[in-house]
Amino acid sequence: MSAEIICIGTELLLGDILNGNARYLAQELASLGIPHYYQNVVGDNLNRIHGVIEIAYKRSQILIFTGGLGPTPDDLTTEAIASFFDGTLESQPELIADIKEKFASRAREMSENNLKQALIPQGADVLPNITGTAPGIIWQPFKGEKDHPQQQLTILTFPGVPSEMKQMWQDTAVPFLKTQGWGEEIIYSRMMRFRGIGESNLAQKVNHFFDLTSPTVAPYASMGEVRLRVAAKAKTLELAEKLINPVAEQIKAIAGDDYFGDNEDTIASVVGKLLTQKRQTISVAESCTGGGLGAMLTEVAGSSTYFDGGVIAYSNQVKIAQLGVCSQTLDQYGAVSPQVAEEMAKGIQQKMNTDWSISVTGIAGPDGGTEEKPVGLVYAAIASPDGQVKSYEFKLGQKRGRAGIRYLTACYALDKLRRQIMLMN
Amino acid sequence: MSAEIICIGTELLLGDILNGNARYLAQELASLGIPHYYQNVVGDNLNRIHGVIEIAYKRSQILIFTGGLGPTPDDLTTEAIASFFDGTLESQPELIADIKEKFASRAREMSENNLKQALIPQGADVLPNITGTAPGIIWQPFKGEKDHPQQQLTILTFPGVPSEMKQMWQDTAVPFLKTQGWGEEIIYSRMMRFRGIGESNLAQKVNHFFDLTSPTVAPYASMGEVRLRVAAKAKTLELAEKLINPVAEQIKAIAGDDYFGDNEDTIASVVGKLLTQKRQTISVAESCTGGGLGAMLTEVAGSSTYFDGGVIAYSNQVKIAQLGVCSQTLDQYGAVSPQVAEEMAKGIQQKMNTDWSISVTGIAGPDGGTEEKPVGLVYAAIASPDGQVKSYEFKLGQKRGRAGIRYLTACYALDKLRRQIMLMN
Repeated sequence: MSAEIICIGTELLLGDILNGNARYLAQELASLGIPHYYQNVVGDNLNRIHGVIEIAYKRSQILIFTGGLGPTPDDLTTEAIASFFDGTLESQPELIADIKEKFASRAREMSENNLKQALIPQGADVLPNITGTAPGIIWQPFKGEKDHPQQQLTILTFPGVPSEMKQMWQDTAVPFLKTQGWGEEIIYSRMMRFRGIGESNLAQKVNHFFDLTSPTVAPYASMGEVRLRVAAKAKTLELAEKLINPVAEQIKAIAGDDYFGDNEDTIASVVGKLLTQKRQTISVAESCTGGGLGAMLTEVAGSSTYFDGGVIAYSNQVKIAQLGVCSQTLDQYGAVSPQVAEEMAKGIQQKMNTDWSISVTGIAGPDGGTEEKPVGLVYAAIASPDGQVKSYEFKLGQKRGRAGIRYLTACYALDKLRRQIMLMN
Repeated sequence: MSAEIICIGTELLLGDILNGNARYLAQELASLGIPHYYQNVVGDNLNRIHGVIEIAYKRSQILIFTGGLGPTPDDLTTEAIASFFDGTLESQPELIADIKEKFASRAREMSENNLKQALIPQGADVLPNITGTAPGIIWQPFKGEKDHPQQQLTILTFPGVPSEMKQMWQDTAVPFLKTQGWGEEIIYSRMMRFRGIGESNLAQKVNHFFDLTSPTVAPYASMGEVRLRVAAKAKTLELAEKLINPVAEQIKAIAGDDYFGDNEDTIASVVGKLLTQKRQTISVAESCTGGGLGAMLTEVAGSSTYFDGGVIAYSNQVKIAQLGVCSQTLDQYGAVSPQVAEEMAKGIQQKMNTDWSISVTGIAGPDGGTEEKPVGLVYAAIASPDGQVKSYEFKLGQKRGRAGIRYLTACYALDKLRRQIMLMN
């Protein structure tokens, strides 16, 4: 038993909008534990919609349509479904009344086109739309035909407007699916997050978990971060966690410090938790990130507890005047050097009187690189409460682009800070 | 002749990520004038990928795959395509060398798994990936088989990582498609960008352009910005511009200062251009944005010409010590006030000795709001070269969330600066 999503709308094929509806429904199906193997997008074209239905109803038992329920001639979803399954469209007087009332309450004139929205296939149920004028349907076109192989086929339709679709899904579709015995077991998942290790290296280390069936373990990668999704199907969250926890603990033990958090945790929120626990404060001195490191730290609500501020020292003049970097150091080693990073970190720690500080200086590009110091070369330094300053070199490569280099600089620097705070008992 | 998009990845079926790749490719196909009638999403499962290919290659002539090119065992795209079309996978020595070099340049260890990424079907061309280790392929599996009905079939594969996919699309796929005679009449479009005016207000003002057919004019809205897409189909850019320019000029005249740029222009890049023209410099003093304003200004390559630096003054202590804000002002008006914003702007202008400065202070939430000063209330101030300081109040609303409020604060403040610089002859 599985569900399939069919999104109808030429605007999706033109790339005018992101398909947020498919993502929402996918998340909902996952959390209801209803398997879902295919998504389709097709335009406002009767033949092509018929073609997609022909494919979908043979491989899936729940077909979820979004879009194409509007009043205009190119809104074809209901008509296409009805004609494909030899259904007769009937006008529903109570839907007409509802549509008229909605127009009246908004002091808008109803056009004759809108009456089309009151047509639903004989034998289908209305899936009410409280906000908009486009109701959906719940239809089991072969229900009662005992020998029919698709006797179980269920069709649900939703408008393309995300807020209406979501409300109709929650209010009517989910309760309906549960009465059918679907969605009784829910899939819970934990996204475990890692830094400082590549996807393939982590995958090799935790290879033996990938064959598990309950929980399942699957790797994902994004810029500068690797994730493992540990997911289990169970009747309650508690039961799911009993399956997930032991595996997650083993993975943590294998990954060591490369594991930094779960789900919504970010490197900045984890650093924030550590600083809050230790009642310590931090300041930043930024060259190539131009404020991005401070911005990342203060993405976390409540960061004012531990973050005081910093200096954006983009020019050498500001590095000297505001952070006390020696002009000799700049002359001798250049602005992008471990020496300057260290003086920047010391300077801001003293100036802001914080327990910790981080500095970054690097070449974000696209210009300014040399053979010796190419675009993507970054130095960070961390000044710690014991008076030590430690610098780090990151080679981020020229090809990630300015934005990528700046983003990774902030991530990598914060990750080094996280590891240092954890080491400091 | 039409193209079809096939996105492979269980993370899409679980709703873990939005399908931004499908949207990007859809936009690109539209701008190349290549018809595109279907999109598919399928998980990391060999049989189901085969099933989708079976359907797609009979109804479309260009199959564009994204995802499933990674090094792990559940990355199946290349393998699935090769086995479906009876291709033999061959290891490419130059790809192995390239992958090894990428690991070396990042000082990372390569795992044996990564060698899988060097396998491509015999007869296919490599679609090079400059940034990542997952190359794509361009393959015409029936090319040369004269009587074969799918002789024209072309397969393109891309990794799921959006930045890599986009670069590969632009650098290699688009030129390749053009050599095949596709995309010869191209849709050129100019995205005109506006700030400080709502979508419906702008739409009302330029209403009469929406019925044009060449060029077409269509409105889009995103956070804090409205855009008008002016698009024309033509054989060359020059011919398209002859259609687009007169309409764009009329729109500019109507919109006045609310129009700020085209296409890739950002509010920060436009401010940068103005400052460069006038050989003036700027500094920032940031409270609620925590560095985000500086980060936005320095997103622009070459911003060191006019941006010197700034102070992130998250705590009141830093506002006093580093920016010279009076503690009485803080006591009397509170940190979120026009008075404090003005003192911050003056303080940083003097400290950094720049022509201009901007300061921001506000309540980004989710906590810290009061009835008098709700979440979303922000003050910005701009100190100008003539010694004046002007403050602005933004009411950004509680519902945009912390990230939205911080982002809009930076955008709005820079837009005020843009208008002030333009006014100053």
